[in-house]
Amino acid sequence: MLISSEKRNDYHGEFLTEYEGGQLLKGFGLPVIEGKLATSKDEAVSIAREIGFPVVLKGMSRQITHKTDAGIVKLNIENETQLFSAYDEILSNAHRYDSSAHMDGVLVQKMAPKGIEMIVGIKRDPVFGHLLVIGIGGIFVELMKDFAIKLMPVSDDEVDEMIGSLKGSAILRGYRGHEGIDTARLKEIVNGLNRLVEEQPQIAEMDLNPVIFYSQGVAICDVRILMDEPVQPAQPKIHPVERLDKMLNPRSIAVIGASSDEKKNGGRLFRYIIENGFQGKLYPINPKADNIRGYKAYPSLKAVPDDIDLACIIVNAQHVPAVLQDCIEKQVQAVIIYSSGFAELGEEGKKLQEQVVQLAQQGNMSLLGPNSMGIASPAKNIYTVFGSALEAPVKRSGSIAFVSQSGAMGSALLSRAWEQGAGFSRWVSVANEADLTISDFIDRLSDDEATKVISVFMENIKDFAKFKQAAHKALTRRKPVLVFKTGKSTVGKRAVQSHTGSIAGDDAVYTAVFEKTGVLRVNHIDELIDVARIFEQHPLPKGNRMAILTASGGACSVVADLCEEYGLEVPVLTETANIIQQYIPPFGSPYNPVDVTAEIISKPEMFKKVLQALVDDEHIDGILVMLTTNADPGASVIAQAILEIFHSSAKPIVVGRLGADNIAPKAMSIYQDAHFPVYPTPERIVRTMSYLVRYREILEKQKI
Amino acid sequence: MLISSEKRNDYHGEFLTEYEGGQLLKGFGLPVIEGKLATSKDEAVSIAREIGFPVVLKGMSRQITHKTDAGIVKLNIENETQLFSAYDEILSNAHRYDSSAHMDGVLVQKMAPKGIEMIVGIKRDPVFGHLLVIGIGGIFVELMKDFAIKLMPVSDDEVDEMIGSLKGSAILRGYRGHEGIDTARLKEIVNGLNRLVEEQPQIAEMDLNPVIFYSQGVAICDVRILMDEPVQPAQPKIHPVERLDKMLNPRSIAVIGASSDEKKNGGRLFRYIIENGFQGKLYPINPKADNIRGYKAYPSLKAVPDDIDLACIIVNAQHVPAVLQDCIEKQVQAVIIYSSGFAELGEEGKKLQEQVVQLAQQGNMSLLGPNSMGIASPAKNIYTVFGSALEAPVKRSGSIAFVSQSGAMGSALLSRAWEQGAGFSRWVSVANEADLTISDFIDRLSDDEATKVISVFMENIKDFAKFKQAAHKALTRRKPVLVFKTGKSTVGKRAVQSHTGSIAGDDAVYTAVFEKTGVLRVNHIDELIDVARIFEQHPLPKGNRMAILTASGGACSVVADLCEEYGLEVPVLTETANIIQQYIPPFGSPYNPVDVTAEIISKPEMFKKVLQALVDDEHIDGILVMLTTNADPGASVIAQAILEIFHSSAKPIVVGRLGADNIAPKAMSIYQDAHFPVYPTPERIVRTMSYLVRYREILEKQKI
Repeated sequence: MLISSEKRNDYHGEFLTEYEGGQLLKGFGLPVIEGKLATSKDEAVSIAREIGFPVVLKGMSRQITHKTDAGIVKLNIENETQLFSAYDEILSNAHRYDSSAHMDGVLVQKMAPKGIEMIVGIKRDPVFGHLLVIGIGGIFVELMKDFAIKLMPVSDDEVDEMIGSLKGSAILRGYRGHEGIDTARLKEIVNGLNRLVEEQPQIAEMDLNPVIFYSQGVAICDVRILMDEPVQPAQPKIHPVERLDKMLNPRSIAVIGASSDEKKNGGRLFRYIIENGFQGKLYPINPKADNIRGYKAYPSLKAVPDDIDLACIIVNAQHVPAVLQDCIEKQVQAVIIYSSGFAELGEEGKKLQEQVVQLAQQGNMSLLGPNSMGIASPAKNIYTVFGSALEAPVKRSGSIAFVSQSGAMGSALLSRAWEQGAGFSRWVSVANEADLTISDFIDRLSDDEATKVISVFMENIKDFAKFKQAAHKALTRRKPVLVFKTGKSTVGKRAVQSHTGSIAGDDAVYTAVFEKTGVLRVNHIDELIDVARIFEQHPLPKGNRMAILTASGGACSVVADLCEEYGLEVPVLTETANIIQQYIPPFGSPYNPVDVTAEIISKPEMFKKVLQALVDDEHIDGILVMLTTNADPGASVIAQAILEIFHSSAKPIVVGRLGADNIAPKAMSIYQDAHFPVYPTPERIVRTMSYLVRYREILEKQKI
Repeated sequence: MLISSEKRNDYHGEFLTEYEGGQLLKGFGLPVIEGKLATSKDEAVSIAREIGFPVVLKGMSRQITHKTDAGIVKLNIENETQLFSAYDEILSNAHRYDSSAHMDGVLVQKMAPKGIEMIVGIKRDPVFGHLLVIGIGGIFVELMKDFAIKLMPVSDDEVDEMIGSLKGSAILRGYRGHEGIDTARLKEIVNGLNRLVEEQPQIAEMDLNPVIFYSQGVAICDVRILMDEPVQPAQPKIHPVERLDKMLNPRSIAVIGASSDEKKNGGRLFRYIIENGFQGKLYPINPKADNIRGYKAYPSLKAVPDDIDLACIIVNAQHVPAVLQDCIEKQVQAVIIYSSGFAELGEEGKKLQEQVVQLAQQGNMSLLGPNSMGIASPAKNIYTVFGSALEAPVKRSGSIAFVSQSGAMGSALLSRAWEQGAGFSRWVSVANEADLTISDFIDRLSDDEATKVISVFMENIKDFAKFKQAAHKALTRRKPVLVFKTGKSTVGKRAVQSHTGSIAGDDAVYTAVFEKTGVLRVNHIDELIDVARIFEQHPLPKGNRMAILTASGGACSVVADLCEEYGLEVPVLTETANIIQQYIPPFGSPYNPVDVTAEIISKPEMFKKVLQALVDDEHIDGILVMLTTNADPGASVIAQAILEIFHSSAKPIVVGRLGADNIAPKAMSIYQDAHFPVYPTPERIVRTMSYLVRYREILEKQKI
């Protein structure tokens, strides 16, 4: 009857009784409160005598999962008389609550004395596996949503982090004479749970609530475990590097569905490939045309007399399988399907998509899409993309790779980023991810020389094992992965039956996933560009000690406020202040924040000396420069000074200009020529710097 | 000896004993826990018998303010024996702690049973007067910084708001079978405290901690009151409308310190006045010049043969008093002092500033500055400003008035806003506020026809009475006042001696001030422009029910997330969905968020029909349109559609475009010609809409 001895693997959403759960936990060395199962009143009394009054009685039945509601929990039983009547009451309440319920017996437990109560829980995510949730008991978890969540297995260091991240962490650490918990005990429990879910993957949800900590010892006082079939993660498909490279750097492209008609996507796609200077061989496939934009057209892929690296399929969805058959015959290994009308369109579309995936498998192809907007490689002038972002007057290459699940958002952001002066190594619209996923591209782009940072617009992760591997690779290559995750508000729709399940929604799970994998989550969509740009050239700061340099008291105050908000220190300068004092007027401020005053306009050379002094200060890890109106010609002198010092220094200098670009066109082109980002608001410089600091912390934590 | 009978007004930072404090509160009908002062052991026993054991003993001495530290508080005394020894211990501990301390006696109080503990406190701000702070007892206030603060007097509705704003409000309201507090009792206490501080303004700080709520009744169990000299708010100086109008709309201007030298501020100021098309009379004052830019120069103000509406003083600080003497003689009523070197420069500068203020008083002048960058009135082509923002290639007029304490930040933001297409009615740099303050301009601009919304960059408020009045005037004129407040991180430097004082820092006080005065606080500096623009033309929504309209599933998801974050509802559409369904393709979404899909490109007229259907839905209060790449020519069709429907509807339509401006130049000029703001990110449309909703709520709350 007991799960721990049974090791069943055929669960379908069943709760263990508390006794069974307790036995299971004990098997893993976990400190479940003393208690035994009684099947008669006499047995109950002798157990109570053995463990000592007061005791708790709990009726055990798999059919009754809400014990308190059923009235089959009796607390604080102080003697035999009370025990007898409690026992009877439990049996009769159980019968009244559910007359068909089978009773395993009555659990007699020691009544736990007061201590510090915690909630420790586990939920299993179909994609990410088991997650550990901890919180402080009472109202903290329930009312204040104060909990910490991590992917399992959870290390001792991570337990410390979890405790530290709780709003009420002082309760666990002890405060004002109140003793905290013995964290070593909590770590032992977590280690036991790590082993447990490793060995028993059929654990779907678990609440240990409360777990009570005492000066000496700890006791798990209630156990609630839901067992379910173990989830078998799909075996990730391996995409050989050669295939992906044919997609990213094709020497020959066939466009199936190419057209001269500009209103058709196939018309624009073909034009963009040509106009942006593709240097390889190009074959339009269109049975109704002889020639498209000067290129000989072929009636079908099979008619092309050459090998094809990349097939771009932009025909109606129902024709896609036939085209893929041609691709198989032609031994094409890389395919982009732009056509929509697949999984995004409901059941019928899903079937078509499955068919397409099978064909890709059969033909040993790697397939992007369906519903993709394509791939762009600005540094190589390859634009197999049909999005109207390509109408942009200037397309810049750079070292940001951008991978997006939403084609529309990715394309819009690309155009906006180009306009702001950002440049890209690659831009990929993964869309339906029928075959190739975000993870495949993070993996591949981690090895892409042209790429220094990878920005991702994400709706979800489908292949966690691959994602984890790819994120790790990116870390070891020191290429930050920035993720903007959408879909927060549509979460929590799945039915969850446990407390732990209900408090830790999907968004919290993703946060845990990003933390575990060393990915930088950004909270605003424009940060995918802002923050990526800073990682292109800027060195990482050694710590979080910032100097603030402005020409205005107001700017000093605003940037200082933001540093406090984003956890950046602004240490007071001592020796460096003496140096700075020599350069700035008496109504300036040489401490930190540093205000060089409006004299910067008449004496711009003074700015350079001050900035150099800050860079030279070993107590400063990075410099935040916030310029205000800053018009040309002074603005240009300052731009030159910033770039010279930046290029000769190993510290990040993040620069903002609140004033309009159009009053400093020369300065702006100096920055742009150097590919040096300048941000329009104080918030954006501080936010961006905070990501440099965080990435350094991640590398340290992951010991890379 | 007792304060309540004494009514002393000569306090200089003294704590009352708990007994005195309790008596004072009882005088205002407050439910202080039962207790009496004993001056002998026998008296203590008879008091204890009268009120019933268990009791608490507390030694009373003005010299010992930290009773627990001194060991003169004894809890839970159950009988006479315990009382005797506790009494002795208190006396000996008091003597040991401070042998010179005078003991008033020993307070014998009923030992309070357990209940829901709250902290109720008062702090007095030198500018804003008394503030009420409430929080839940235990760790909530101390560790979780969970408190609510309001300016006194606090109404019953405000008490409800305060409770609702606490993170742990469920504890007070009751949850899961736990009873909450009787809020009527809390309101009685607050009303008593309102009367108390009204009658006893010398109350500087007060902690009632804990105040314990029971199913029946409530008890204030500890009282700690700091008395100090009452603060006398300075009488606000009245600036007659005529004087301010001479400053805002001068017909004649004298520029003392005008110069032909462009490197001098006086040179730029004079040029800007001319180049921007000032139509009145203009008199450069400069003893060293005959003629400046074609204008006859005068050696002194007195030599000008005409009346002067506005004197612009831009000479070295030390010469300012002499120039002001000339202004007095010339009966000039409006003066701007641009010169720096006053209060911002320390003690000496402060004295010079005081002298200047006296002269202004003496001459019945209104004075802006010192250290001001001036005033601009774009709608009237008057620019008495020397900031280099005026190098902007386009200067737009509009209905935003901008008032800034920081000239540099204000000027930079002006240039940036112009570049983004925003227009201004007035721009004012109040700087040192020696005479005219932010409040004076909020007051005046509330009556300015050209102004529809007032944006303020604020470091602090110096004249609260005036500010309150001005903010109220703005509310009655339905002109929103938006404030960005800086200086958060430099707060809390003042020594505070009470708990209440230390938990409620300056920034929380400002939040309370803005709430009380119906001012909209913005949290990002660029919102001073973003949000102001929306108030220029957009009607207020009737509620917070939003329709989201996009052409991308990704955009739908991002905007929906943001609506949840900003407290906007996104109701599911029913009948309207049926209408929309007719216009959009099957893979779109007609519910809410509405996704019209990329078919918007080939069928832009469909967009207009969908938008119209949303506007017509009576369950929708406002529409959030988030466009993605949206290139011309489609973008222009959509821009036209939006403007047509916007102008024929009474609902706000806030529009975003993530795609670059440079792929839709025609659309952007359509929006710009209509003065219609378009925001580049989803966050900015949702944030902006949330301010429209909030302003409507403020008007309702203030019954305007």
